[in-house]
This record gives sequence, C-alpha cells and structure tokens, in this order.
Amino acid sequence: MNSEFIRILTDHGFTDVKADKCAEIFTLNSLEGIYSHGVNRFPRFVDNIRKGYIRPDAEPALIGASGSLEQWNGNLGPGPLNALLATERAMELADENGIGMVAMRNTNHWMRGGTYGWKAAKKGYAFIGWTNTEANMPAWGAKDFRLGNNPLVLAVPYGREAIVLDFAMSQYSYGKLELYQLEGKQLPFPGGFNDKNELTTDPGEILATRRALPIGYWKGSGISLLLDILASALSGGFTTGEISQLEAEYALSQVFIAINLKALANKENIDKTINGIIGDLKGSVPVTPGTEIRYPGENIIRIREENKKNGIPVNKEIWRRIIKM
Amino acid sequence: MNSEFIRILTDHGFTDVKADKCAEIFTLNSLEGIYSHGVNRFPRFVDNIRKGYIRPDAEPALIGASGSLEQWNGNLGPGPLNALLATERAMELADENGIGMVAMRNTNHWMRGGTYGWKAAKKGYAFIGWTNTEANMPAWGAKDFRLGNNPLVLAVPYGREAIVLDFAMSQYSYGKLELYQLEGKQLPFPGGFNDKNELTTDPGEILATRRALPIGYWKGSGISLLLDILASALSGGFTTGEISQLEAEYALSQVFIAINLKALANKENIDKTINGIIGDLKGSVPVTPGTEIRYPGENIIRIREENKKNGIPVNKEIWRRIIKM
Repeated sequence: MNSEFIRILTDHGFTDVKADKCAEIFTLNSLEGIYSHGVNRFPRFVDNIRKGYIRPDAEPALIGASGSLEQWNGNLGPGPLNALLATERAMELADENGIGMVAMRNTNHWMRGGTYGWKAAKKGYAFIGWTNTEANMPAWGAKDFRLGNNPLVLAVPYGREAIVLDFAMSQYSYGKLELYQLEGKQLPFPGGFNDKNELTTDPGEILATRRALPIGYWKGSGISLLLDILASALSGGFTTGEISQLEAEYALSQVFIAINLKALANKENIDKTINGIIGDLKGSVPVTPGTEIRYPGENIIRIREENKKNGIPVNKEIWRRIIKM
Repeated sequence: MNSEFIRILTDHGFTDVKADKCAEIFTLNSLEGIYSHGVNRFPRFVDNIRKGYIRPDAEPALIGASGSLEQWNGNLGPGPLNALLATERAMELADENGIGMVAMRNTNHWMRGGTYGWKAAKKGYAFIGWTNTEANMPAWGAKDFRLGNNPLVLAVPYGREAIVLDFAMSQYSYGKLELYQLEGKQLPFPGGFNDKNELTTDPGEILATRRALPIGYWKGSGISLLLDILASALSGGFTTGEISQLEAEYALSQVFIAINLKALANKENIDKTINGIIGDLKGSVPVTPGTEIRYPGENIIRIREENKKNGIPVNKEIWRRIIKM
C-alpha cells in the first residue's frame, strides 16, 4: 500500500521525501483502522492535486513569530505535510519555552487529526490541535449550514503509546449517516432532526433535513464557532464562511499546540498520574456486565496490531482504482 | 450586594484587597445572571472557609517555570482569587512570548469559569482554560461516577465585549435536573439514562440512576477524561479520582492559557475576522421563524444591562441568610 501511494504521489509532482512522508501518513491511518482518512480517501486526495487545490511543490512559509507562537502560510501544500511540519515546529517551540503554538493558514485537509496527536504524544508532548472546515452543520436553532464540524484533537503520552481523542463537533459525519442508511440501520443514538423538528435515530430523515446534531446540542454549536474564530483569527486565514464560498474545501485554518512535559517540575510523576486516571476509569462498573470501559485511542492500538498481523483490509473497488492510477 | 460580600469576607479573614477582589467576582457573576455561581453559591463558599477547605490567608506559590509555562501551587486559597492570579500571569507570559500557560494545583472551585474568559478577552487576549472537579458523571458505558464534568472555557474579544463559551462536560448539571424536577417539567432534550438504559428527558429518572449524559455521548466522556489528565499532569495536582477520595471537593487542578492577539501579524484584521464569523452566524435561517441565532455570551451582555437597570434579582431566603452572616 505504501509503495503504491509513493508511486502515485511521485507521479503527481511530489519529491521523493515528500512522497515518503505523505504516503506514510495515509498508510498509517489505514493500518490504524481510520480507512475513511486513509486508503479510502486517497483517490480524492489525488483528485484534488489534479484539480490544483493541493499543490505538491508548495512550501509552507513563516509569516509571523512572537516567542513561542508562530504563524505559517501553508501555501496550499498537501494538508498532511503542512500539519506534520506545524506539529514538529510546535514541539521545537515547546522545547525552548515549555509550550509552543503554530497557527497555519491557507493549508489543506489534514486527513486524520489524530495523526498529529499520536506523533506529538509518542514523543512525550501533550498536544492540542484543531482545524476549521467548510460549513457542514447548522448552528443550534438553525436550518442551514453555517458551522464546520471542526475536528479537535487532545493527546497525551501513555507509556510507549498515547491517549488520543480526535473528534468532530457533529455527532455523526454525513459519511457515517450514509453508511447506516445503506445498511438499513438506525443510529444507536439520536444524530439529528427530522422534518418535524424532533431528534431522530433515522439516518434517512437526517440526510433529508441536513440537520445533523452538534455534540451536546447547543454546546457543540458553540464549540464549533469558537474553534473557527480561534483558528482563523490566530492564523489570519479563512473562516468556515469564507472557505464555504470557494468552489471546493481548501485553504483551511489550523492550530497546533505542544506542551513539553519534560519541562515540568513534576515530570517524574506524570506517568503515575496518567496511569492512576486510566486505572480509575477501568475500575468503572459497566452498564453491560463483562464489558470494558475504554479510553480514547485504545481501539487504535488493537486494530494496528490486528492489521499488522492480517494485513490492512481494503475495499476492492477502491484498491482497483488506486493501482490503476 | 458587593458591600455585604466584602463585610462577610473581611469577617472571615480576608484582607481588604482580597475581600474586594473576591466580592467583585461573586457580584459580577450575579450581575451577569450566573446566580448559581454568584449570590446563590456564596453561603456555601463561606461554609467551606469555616470548614477550612478554603484558606483566606493562603498565597499561591510558583513551583516551576519554563519559558511561557508556569506551574503554581494554589495552597488551597480562595478559588476565584487563585484563578484570577493565574489568568493575569498567563496574560503576562503571553505578553512576553505570544502565548502563556499557567497550570495550578491545589486550588479551589473557581465558581464561574467564564469570569476568567471575560477578563482575558476584554483585555484583548484569546483564552482557553479548564478545571477538573470531583467525580460526578459516569464514563460512557458505565454506571458509577469516575469522571468530573470538568468545565472548559474558550473566549475571544468581540469589540468592547467578548465571545465566551463556558460549558461543563455533562449535558445538564444535577442542580438543573433538580430544578426541572421541582417544577415538574421534562428536559427539552435527553439528559441521561433511565433504569432501562434508555435516553430520557425525565429529570426524576436521571436523578434516580445518577447517569447524567456526557455531551455528545461517548465524545464528552472522552473530553472529560483528557481534560482531567491534562489539568492534573500539567499542574502536578490531584486527579478527579484523587479529589473524590477527599471528604469534600477541594484541591482542584486547573489550566489557564492566554494568547496575545496583539503579537499576531494579522492583528489589524482580527476584529474583521470575528465580525465576519458572527455576521455569518446571524445570517442563519432559523428553525423557528423570527428567532435569532445567538453566539456564546450574547445573553450575558443583555442580562448584565437588565440587572444594572433593575437590580440583581435574589432569592429572598438566600439573601436573608447572607445578610445575617
């Protein structure tokens, strides 16, 4: 999979180094079970290169710096490479100043936000990062799309692994709603409104109204708004509203914050603190006897091991498209 | 109200300066309509001083510093004063380095998190802050309390005012559920599980199972966990699990991040960016014709003006208790 990705990216103007780095992200996302932002998304990524939305030869440029805060212009380069650079730069700034923040304007879809959380946390940093998106969710009380689902990532080291929360502000993505509809299933929990303005578990009803539910009702609507304000104001980049005026979803605004845990007075005790919290969580009394309460990212480790052993499962149609590229 | 608070705090060992600052926070919270963390909470605050959980004479102490990151010990001083100091210190660090972070251990309930968001945002900073709490919410899939509702605050300047989102990770607080039950009302949206493991809008059913809903179902459960890990690891303070072992809720861990917007290359355009986002939000098509889509904090401004004009409404019983203190 990785060598196919490298071949195709090289054919589309990526240097060897960039093709390697970018392919690795798509492959790792697939290995860790996030197929929607790995192998399944790769054809669309290439399509966006062909259409000129993603510029393989672009280099991000520093446009502002103040101590442990930097602003970068992504120059419409590949989202995963820009996000990787921003994460690495935030870690360098954190090495110097305890905390580092990089705000990047004019970048592209980072695919899976968790990628950057895992990257930083496995190197010993706490990580907070988010992106804005095109409008794909109505504000609370509204019918039309004015908010993005603006994924947010929170990550911390956990032994040699990490605890990584990577979540969008919509309860279910439209992709997920379509999947449930295709399989003729109801959602496990209400995911939006029907045309009678009632919460519903019927994916078809939500796809008809386009009123997907923000997490926590009015709260997720507020979080999405604030994340867009912060991303666009801190980077000087486009807002969700401005991105939505473009002919496709590109020129996004993103924020990356890294905190150097080794700079803390309690650095020797951090593992103990985190182990204690996870131990406490695992001691929960489950609603369904015999089930285990999981922490964010725990499934990723299991799927990674499974896929390493058995190979990465791929949709045959998508894989056929990719090898013909 | 403010002079009554000052009188009582002075009687309980606060210096004049501390009594002034602390009373101002309780009064402002009440003036802005957050009675639950203003006048209504004041008797319990005084009770916690009498019990020794809150130490009026404690001074916070710096215990670690690395560039734009500082760690403080709150020494169990009054939560609002410690939080105010942390916010001011984060802003000073942001003046030097673009971004500043203060993690504070061993502090007390900050009352209303929005207080610190408003403070920073009105001075021109972006603000991100959160606190852990005692366990008051089951993890997703669990029956017993292992998570806090861990309020998070996101704030940015907006003209001479601010946009401030201040929210807990539980959909409704237990106080709110009790209020609905008392009034014999159903919740407007599902707020927890009944004993059949079904989502319910019945406050009594939720108060019986004690299974209040995290915002966004499993997502809010994850956010709460990560915020506790970050607060306790970054401050070196107690975790939600450790706080829950104490005889009362004290010795909390909190994080305060300020970002100096004046240090940004696009500082001249930030107002325009934020105005654009709010203008776009306000252009939403409302579900109920004639209603307006609001941004977080918008109501606060309205209530503040109303209360300035008409006085702060108080519960007579609570006010009688206060003036007798």
